[in-house]
Amino acid sequence: MTKPRHVSKKTEGKQRRHGLNQFHLELSLIPIPLAHEISPGDSIVDKLLQSLEQQNLTFESDDILVVKHKIVSKAEGRIVDLTRIKPSAHSIAWAKKYKLDARVIELALRESRAVIRRKNGVLITETRHGFICANSGVDVSNVDGGRHALLLPVDPDRSARQLHLELKRRTKIAIPVLVTDTFGRPWREGLVDFCIGIAGMKPLRDDRGRRDPHGYTLHASLEAVADELAAAASLVCGKLNRTPACIIRGFPYESSRGRTGDLLRPPVKDLFR
Amino acid sequence: MTKPRHVSKKTEGKQRRHGLNQFHLELSLIPIPLAHEISPGDSIVDKLLQSLEQQNLTFESDDILVVKHKIVSKAEGRIVDLTRIKPSAHSIAWAKKYKLDARVIELALRESRAVIRRKNGVLITETRHGFICANSGVDVSNVDGGRHALLLPVDPDRSARQLHLELKRRTKIAIPVLVTDTFGRPWREGLVDFCIGIAGMKPLRDDRGRRDPHGYTLHASLEAVADELAAAASLVCGKLNRTPACIIRGFPYESSRGRTGDLLRPPVKDLFR
Repeated sequence: MTKPRHVSKKTEGKQRRHGLNQFHLELSLIPIPLAHEISPGDSIVDKLLQSLEQQNLTFESDDILVVKHKIVSKAEGRIVDLTRIKPSAHSIAWAKKYKLDARVIELALRESRAVIRRKNGVLITETRHGFICANSGVDVSNVDGGRHALLLPVDPDRSARQLHLELKRRTKIAIPVLVTDTFGRPWREGLVDFCIGIAGMKPLRDDRGRRDPHGYTLHASLEAVADELAAAASLVCGKLNRTPACIIRGFPYESSRGRTGDLLRPPVKDLFR
Repeated sequence: MTKPRHVSKKTEGKQRRHGLNQFHLELSLIPIPLAHEISPGDSIVDKLLQSLEQQNLTFESDDILVVKHKIVSKAEGRIVDLTRIKPSAHSIAWAKKYKLDARVIELALRESRAVIRRKNGVLITETRHGFICANSGVDVSNVDGGRHALLLPVDPDRSARQLHLELKRRTKIAIPVLVTDTFGRPWREGLVDFCIGIAGMKPLRDDRGRRDPHGYTLHASLEAVADELAAAASLVCGKLNRTPACIIRGFPYESSRGRTGDLLRPPVKDLFR
């Protein structure tokens, strides 16, 4: 079941006012701050709906919900007491050399299925899900000041799907959900948010075979819209402002069950492992 | 001269209505379609202002302008007649093997300062500017159906700066300008837009040393906001809809001259060359 575009009546009005065709839509990024921490077992949808209510906002039919994985991991209890981790001699030696926490390195290795690079104190792994990132996504910031570490959700697509279904039950709208994490990149400085879990929309937009306005057939136009939505969301969400989620309103996504695996390049096709 | 935040009176009004603090700002992405092609010597600022006027829109004081490099390259005459390119025997052999255009491969090599990977018909180079991407950013889509190729601007920061200064002269507002291109990424499928030229703002947001709400000091929080803005812009701009530019309204950027080089990791620190 693929519906090509989701645009609310409000957005259509704005579109008509501007006399624009269907492609020329304004998008909005609406932050959803949470006043309180998420704890294991909490309903994230509950907290988000409360926050929106306080702002006199509601979900609309052309919304996408983007959620930082941290609150998902917290709600799912993916929290590890670092005092209970006994690092290997190898992890201890490597961590000592670069003044790192050996317990975090140990956890990162346990959460990985491959080490991609380990050099200069940087550990790049492939997680069990297939994401390639530093320390398997194991994080100690925004948890509780360094006593506990947070792991990625076991199955972020399943997490996104659960949020999607609960939202649908509560709002009667099928709102796509993205779960994101912050990764570094080869060659470029600075971190950017990426999609690690998706439900309700396709993560890629495939324009291959379509023609540009000059009649030239596009060959390489497979656009990672889920990663672009994740990066966009990061502009209003943040580590320091207790805003772990936002709405992206007006993006013409393609409905689908959604599968983050579509964003992962098969190792045989990859040139940078 | 660093001003920390730029928020228009309109946006401040919206902010107050929602009872939010300074971090909880809504962002808008406003596409700027162009009815006609950009030709060498055209004033991009002129065309963008005309388009906005037709939509009854004007630039505001909390705007950032994002422009796809293609119109910048066209305006700057970075167009190459492919019939005049004589590829080397090596380029011909390699292109033939993978059914590619040897002239494009030849141009890509000429525009590069290093070949990072060449395998399975994929050519990843480091451009003279230091960007690592496929075919040195040489492009034949959205030019004229395959007869000409488009090169990246000679100095995209200078291009951004010129747009920034012309906009300032015309609108009396200092609006940061980003020039973007579409790149692939290691490990992940699909293309995403990246910042290749910047003026008027810092490309990175540095939260290192600040404390999260739990008192934990952030170590790794250097955020590539320029790349996130570029990726966000791509959600409303597109190859197929004649929309090569957009406004991002409401993002609290840090003013600065701006230097894309800050986004490029020095080769000695990079693990993926």
